[in-house]
Amino acid sequence: MKILLSITLATSLLTASSLREDAKNAGLSPIPASQTALLKLIDNPKNPLTKEKIALGKKLYFDPRLSKSELISCNTCHNLSEGGDDGLEASIGHKWTQNPHHLNAPTVYNAVFNDSQFWDGRAKDLEKQAQGPIQAHPEMAATKTHVVNVVTSMPAYVNSFQKAYGKDVKISFEKVTDTIGLFERTLVTPAPYDDFLNGQDNALSQAQKKGLKTFITLGCASCHTGVGLGGSMNAINITGTYKYMNVGDFKGDKNGLVKVPTLRNIAQTAPYFHNGKIWNLKTAIQEMGRIQLGVKINEEQTKSIETFLHALTGRKPLLNLPLLPESTQKTPKPELN
Amino acid sequence: MKILLSITLATSLLTASSLREDAKNAGLSPIPASQTALLKLIDNPKNPLTKEKIALGKKLYFDPRLSKSELISCNTCHNLSEGGDDGLEASIGHKWTQNPHHLNAPTVYNAVFNDSQFWDGRAKDLEKQAQGPIQAHPEMAATKTHVVNVVTSMPAYVNSFQKAYGKDVKISFEKVTDTIGLFERTLVTPAPYDDFLNGQDNALSQAQKKGLKTFITLGCASCHTGVGLGGSMNAINITGTYKYMNVGDFKGDKNGLVKVPTLRNIAQTAPYFHNGKIWNLKTAIQEMGRIQLGVKINEEQTKSIETFLHALTGRKPLLNLPLLPESTQKTPKPELN
Repeated sequence: MKILLSITLATSLLTASSLREDAKNAGLSPIPASQTALLKLIDNPKNPLTKEKIALGKKLYFDPRLSKSELISCNTCHNLSEGGDDGLEASIGHKWTQNPHHLNAPTVYNAVFNDSQFWDGRAKDLEKQAQGPIQAHPEMAATKTHVVNVVTSMPAYVNSFQKAYGKDVKISFEKVTDTIGLFERTLVTPAPYDDFLNGQDNALSQAQKKGLKTFITLGCASCHTGVGLGGSMNAINITGTYKYMNVGDFKGDKNGLVKVPTLRNIAQTAPYFHNGKIWNLKTAIQEMGRIQLGVKINEEQTKSIETFLHALTGRKPLLNLPLLPESTQKTPKPELN
Repeated sequence: MKILLSITLATSLLTASSLREDAKNAGLSPIPASQTALLKLIDNPKNPLTKEKIALGKKLYFDPRLSKSELISCNTCHNLSEGGDDGLEASIGHKWTQNPHHLNAPTVYNAVFNDSQFWDGRAKDLEKQAQGPIQAHPEMAATKTHVVNVVTSMPAYVNSFQKAYGKDVKISFEKVTDTIGLFERTLVTPAPYDDFLNGQDNALSQAQKKGLKTFITLGCASCHTGVGLGGSMNAINITGTYKYMNVGDFKGDKNGLVKVPTLRNIAQTAPYFHNGKIWNLKTAIQEMGRIQLGVKINEEQTKSIETFLHALTGRKPLLNLPLLPESTQKTPKPELN
């Protein structure tokens, strides 16, 4: 009995460690368990994270007054109470305009692990990305001047910028978006999957381990790789092959490539694909097999992968709802048109 | 020197206590300092507050999936990061429709102290009120069925309802809105004004005390009275007298009366009046003098009252951002039209 137990234990340890080895060879890496290692991974060397900047960035992220209507904040489409997205096929913004390319809002959670931002990867980091939606007409529709005027109209905001960047800070549009980007860098969600890769053998169930193995064996990790299980532009050109290519006019980057989305919290971020046409995780898995890997993923494999994907649902940072500075007579008025 | 100090102190104590007496005689009462007394004031005897119900109500309050588009939550127009409102003249809802009567979203903070809800007082309490905007076509535009289907599609929500109301709970639309109403009852913001009325002589500055005195003397407290400094239908009929009566078609209740709004956090809830036409607190004070009291409030009095009103900016409850249950395949899909 004792011997049997030892053997079982050894096998299970061996399995866990060989699975970890497989994962590593497939280019998968966990969110580091050590705070120091994590900070190194998410920090912006040119504008290092500090408590003050993060707190300010959070306020700006939640402040609808940055938009032209003063009703739409970053959190409207990248809702941190949900999966870091809006749960719509294609986002709705200013004047109830749907994204003209029928693009799905990607989750902001773990977006720091993406090699680049936007579906065509046109922004190199979160700071650059944040400049887009605030100004885009179908999204927040604001001008740079509006944003700067809103922020500088409130002494409490000016004070927070000074605390974060020093007395002589120049509050520019870019300073605002840089600070939002910094806050977004902190939105990482370690999951049972990470605990497993970081050495906790029992963080994943047997079924989830099997699913991870299937995920690797079938080649899913060739695109969904790295810390983010996605986030790079190394997908196969999908033009013409995807069955919903006729929805929206998005054609990818200059090479026709669409960014590989992160799979972290995928169970919370339906609908799927760049145009949000797939509402079902099983269908998404099978479609990806067909389009990207040229294989038919059978029912059992699909279920197994799906089971694994649930182990990517992470622990979200607990955030206090920010209390925003009050508007003053100098604060620009909302414009609804 | 010692004698002088004693006299000054005595005068100041006398002033404070006589000002408190004036306030009491004018019908003003503080948010109680004692938690027991406060609970008695805000509780719903038919559905008593519990930790479980409040936590669930908070989730529902922040859940945009209760709306037809699944993009608009209670918090969209009654934003707890701002003044508990949206900072617009008249709210924007489903399909970017502005409130057809050009009505301004009242703050949800301290709304529990209102005698009745809505500008025409047609809902007796917050629970009844919550039924309105969720179903109103220019607001959240949902059907009762949509709301029930959304909530019951998520095991985590069902579980929370069972924890809050017992295993046999029937999750109806009214159960959802009742629970939202319960959460809203807890949104009270004690202010320096309350500290003063509760006995802390120095909670108000001399200028604020003077302002309170002016506020009472001029008769402002005849309408802005009670714990909420407002909240009743005892205003004068304003039909025809208000200079922006031509904005919106709202004519008040059956007697032409418009509910007196709370003055708590008034510095954070511009624009003012039922149709949000006044952006400036000074102008609002003077207009109210003209319309309601038939007096011209001079510059000095206006400034004094304004100084006092800032002492009504309260301490908001610190809330964790709720993390919402994840949608399932049974969750109804968003409808944008």
